[in-house]
Amino acid sequence: MTKKGLGVILETKEIEIKESVYERNEEIAKELNNELTSEGIFCVNVMGAPGVGKTSALYTMIGMLDGDASVIEGDIESEIDTLKLRKLGINAYQINTNGACHLDSPVVKDAIKTFAPPSGYLFIENIGNLVCPAEFLIGEHIKMLISTVTEGSDKPYKYPLAFEKADIILINKADIEKYVEFDRDYFTKGVKALNKNVPVFFVSSKTGEGFEEVALWIKTKRKELIGK
Amino acid sequence: MTKKGLGVILETKEIEIKESVYERNEEIAKELNNELTSEGIFCVNVMGAPGVGKTSALYTMIGMLDGDASVIEGDIESEIDTLKLRKLGINAYQINTNGACHLDSPVVKDAIKTFAPPSGYLFIENIGNLVCPAEFLIGEHIKMLISTVTEGSDKPYKYPLAFEKADIILINKADIEKYVEFDRDYFTKGVKALNKNVPVFFVSSKTGEGFEEVALWIKTKRKELIGK
Repeated sequence: MTKKGLGVILETKEIEIKESVYERNEEIAKELNNELTSEGIFCVNVMGAPGVGKTSALYTMIGMLDGDASVIEGDIESEIDTLKLRKLGINAYQINTNGACHLDSPVVKDAIKTFAPPSGYLFIENIGNLVCPAEFLIGEHIKMLISTVTEGSDKPYKYPLAFEKADIILINKADIEKYVEFDRDYFTKGVKALNKNVPVFFVSSKTGEGFEEVALWIKTKRKELIGK
Repeated sequence: MTKKGLGVILETKEIEIKESVYERNEEIAKELNNELTSEGIFCVNVMGAPGVGKTSALYTMIGMLDGDASVIEGDIESEIDTLKLRKLGINAYQINTNGACHLDSPVVKDAIKTFAPPSGYLFIENIGNLVCPAEFLIGEHIKMLISTVTEGSDKPYKYPLAFEKADIILINKADIEKYVEFDRDYFTKGVKALNKNVPVFFVSSKTGEGFEEVALWIKTKRKELIGK
């Protein structure tokens, strides 16, 4: 989302419209979150840049959870990830935004109405974008941010909002950490300055490393937040 | 940029405002492009997701060009990349968008007025985002898209606009291609379906591999487009 308007004349009008859009989004997201809670569905908003391995993290993790787990795949175009998940026996539903850079709560609400996921876990994979999705609630109980060792350790300093709002952070592709320059201390310092108590897990979707710990954290958080 | 409005009432009004914003952006970008051409400045809009190595590609490439080269760094927050470039003796100027997910032409116009780059090459590193920057002209002569082998070979299928609009595509981090799964044929097929004649260069900012060819392409393109 652009926060800066173009030119003085448009700026005020644009900001007013955007504020209404934000407010309406938050209202719908809160209603949706209440509905999901009452149906025993724990909803995770999965965010991260393109190619960090959001889908592969999901299929590695889902087998380690107790109970049903479904996925809503948000993509600008294509059904690649949904088909990949279905092949693995995972209950998955596709949203295509046709150009839009993030999911919003009305779009997710419609998808849930059609998809009707069972009680358990619902992962919503947002558009691959480290900027815009962090600004919009979509009915989630928690936000999971996925970054990678290949993206570099300066990301919290450059894209602070996503790191600030995350409830859990996964650093994927840990299996190739030795081939790239990734400074764990610098990264962690950046994260902690924005989000003091957020847990950070180094994982690899390729080897499975770290995902048992992530699954345990999610199971515990579900009990804490929706009592199930 | 969100293309979908939230709710029927807001939608029409929102779209109207956005169309005006787009049109105004295009007008300013065209004026700016004419000014740059007349001053002998060849302007490259450098786009790509977070962590693909936009800055490191720039400093590898700049030494291989003839004549002066300057950089405008677009970041949401921080001056990390600008300071890095200045340390290497490169003339660099910082734009911070404070949350906005792409650069636009008024912001770039103001920066150029203050920065006053010399004739030669001007690289504008856009916000790390594979979605939104592709929608906005910022006065450039060409768009350079940087992707990586670590991002995966399905990116053209999932984020088509950036690949469709690119005048040149760099696939960075080729030095670690053997440690990740990257299908060159599948990637190339996806690119060619969107943008038949775009040149694709496999490069590594770490080893320098491929950048002499990129620099030669840029020098040739400059002569072709601004006659210098």
